[in-house]
Amino acid sequence: MITLSDIESAADRIADAVIRTPLLPARWADAERPLWIKPENLQPIGAFKIRGAFNAVGNLAESERARGVVAYSSGNHAQAVAYAAAAYGIAAHIVMPEETPAVKVQATRDHGAHVILCGAGEREKVAAEVLEQTGGVLIPPFDHPDVIAGQGTIGLEIADDLPEVDNVLVPVSGGGLASGIGTAIKARCPAAKVFGVEPELAADTTEGLRRGERVDWSIEHRNRTIADGLRSQPSALTFAHLQQVIDGMITVSENEIRTAVRELALRAHLVSEPSGAVALAAYRQKRTPPGRTVIILSGGNVEPSTLADIMAG
Amino acid sequence: MITLSDIESAADRIADAVIRTPLLPARWADAERPLWIKPENLQPIGAFKIRGAFNAVGNLAESERARGVVAYSSGNHAQAVAYAAAAYGIAAHIVMPEETPAVKVQATRDHGAHVILCGAGEREKVAAEVLEQTGGVLIPPFDHPDVIAGQGTIGLEIADDLPEVDNVLVPVSGGGLASGIGTAIKARCPAAKVFGVEPELAADTTEGLRRGERVDWSIEHRNRTIADGLRSQPSALTFAHLQQVIDGMITVSENEIRTAVRELALRAHLVSEPSGAVALAAYRQKRTPPGRTVIILSGGNVEPSTLADIMAG
Repeated sequence: MITLSDIESAADRIADAVIRTPLLPARWADAERPLWIKPENLQPIGAFKIRGAFNAVGNLAESERARGVVAYSSGNHAQAVAYAAAAYGIAAHIVMPEETPAVKVQATRDHGAHVILCGAGEREKVAAEVLEQTGGVLIPPFDHPDVIAGQGTIGLEIADDLPEVDNVLVPVSGGGLASGIGTAIKARCPAAKVFGVEPELAADTTEGLRRGERVDWSIEHRNRTIADGLRSQPSALTFAHLQQVIDGMITVSENEIRTAVRELALRAHLVSEPSGAVALAAYRQKRTPPGRTVIILSGGNVEPSTLADIMAG
Repeated sequence: MITLSDIESAADRIADAVIRTPLLPARWADAERPLWIKPENLQPIGAFKIRGAFNAVGNLAESERARGVVAYSSGNHAQAVAYAAAAYGIAAHIVMPEETPAVKVQATRDHGAHVILCGAGEREKVAAEVLEQTGGVLIPPFDHPDVIAGQGTIGLEIADDLPEVDNVLVPVSGGGLASGIGTAIKARCPAAKVFGVEPELAADTTEGLRRGERVDWSIEHRNRTIADGLRSQPSALTFAHLQQVIDGMITVSENEIRTAVRELALRAHLVSEPSGAVALAAYRQKRTPPGRTVIILSGGNVEPSTLADIMAG
């Protein structure tokens, strides 16, 4: 299990690479639950993933790092690893499914990464081949202590900026973000409650935490949600963290997610991807205890057509 | 003329009320002109106007301030004065034209201000009556040293965060923003160039600075631009500042403004009102000298239908 000290080391390691995002007061919110937004969509790659990737790459021994890094991802983790590799001047090989939108492939290449496209369901096999060929190191999207510690730096910043925080609402997919933030908040603000948020259509962690063990929802089932960044499931490592640090789970509907994207754009002037807006959607249900509340806006990489569609209402 | 010292005093005065906005690196930009965005749309009222209003209200003698404040505005200045008055616990009377969108009237009332609706072209007369009746103090949108000094705090923050800045691009309407930022930048980063940006359809300052005297474009002419926050013209005070601190003016077309709003949303994940996006539109013309460039994103209060229309492309 990661500790506060791991997260503090991560904060030192990534300080020059990430934006120290401000905590933005949302004065249009519920008076009983004063609201602040942590806008991780403002990071250089448009998502919090840069924190974990940068910490993991930065914490490799120099001899390991020199061999380059490998990742498989269709989403923000791909760009995060590519970005971190470029910053360290090492090679990055990113395995992406053939159906990945062209703009995301291009964005990853723009950071100087080698992109290897693969068939559906083949990405782990292809990544293994690339690891073999390149001798590089795999940087997983959430199942790694350094990745979790990197995401946890968000929790440190919240504790610094709003030590009297009462509630923190965090999107949950593979669970790295919530594990890291939860660990930092429980250590620094022990009275605060940490809530995980999932789409109703990908609520495997909600069910798993209730049962006390991980459950498996089919990928066809999870793929139905518009929140394409929240379709993963925790690993044993992240699930163990979540069991320790999560006080409750909240699920949100597809309509609630769309409304939250719209509200973030029009009231907070921030563009969120659907996955990034679930914490606001959960906040709007008013099911958390009254008190000072922070939501994590985890990313802003939305397809133009999706954003246009949501803004049209 | 305001001085660096006035702006530094303003910075102390408003420090607790405004967001210290980060300078966001835009890595998708022109390699010859590395770009940073100053996102003033993230201020509590969604625009930089809070800085000048707060400084002006805060710099009143306590006996003056106790009589309350008055402003006339259909835009962001209305909310800014209402917000500052609420923070100081004093009354605010805001005169707004009857045709002001209902959401903006409501947002001003939500800050606790008394809103007085008036007919077109009557707002100065009505404001004079309100001043007479209430004994309050008028807070003008740009024609006041304390307002200019407040907006200038943006320039101080740029100088602190990027002392080696080469170009700063600032929207120009009444000129308070550019006067303040220009004064701060010229004092703190004397090698940097400051460019003002106007819509082609409201380019009175571009023409005025070329002629060496203020010119008057009809309001019917200026009202044609989608950039509804850039339809004012400088006062004698702001024009004198602009003559000292502006190195050049750039005008942008309506299409360029719309493209810039779209690019800010999709690449920087920031919602801009059309007026807030003109500096990016100017940057995209690549007419400034190469070098480290900062654009001011001045505000994000866009009508939902306008944003939906622009995002639909």
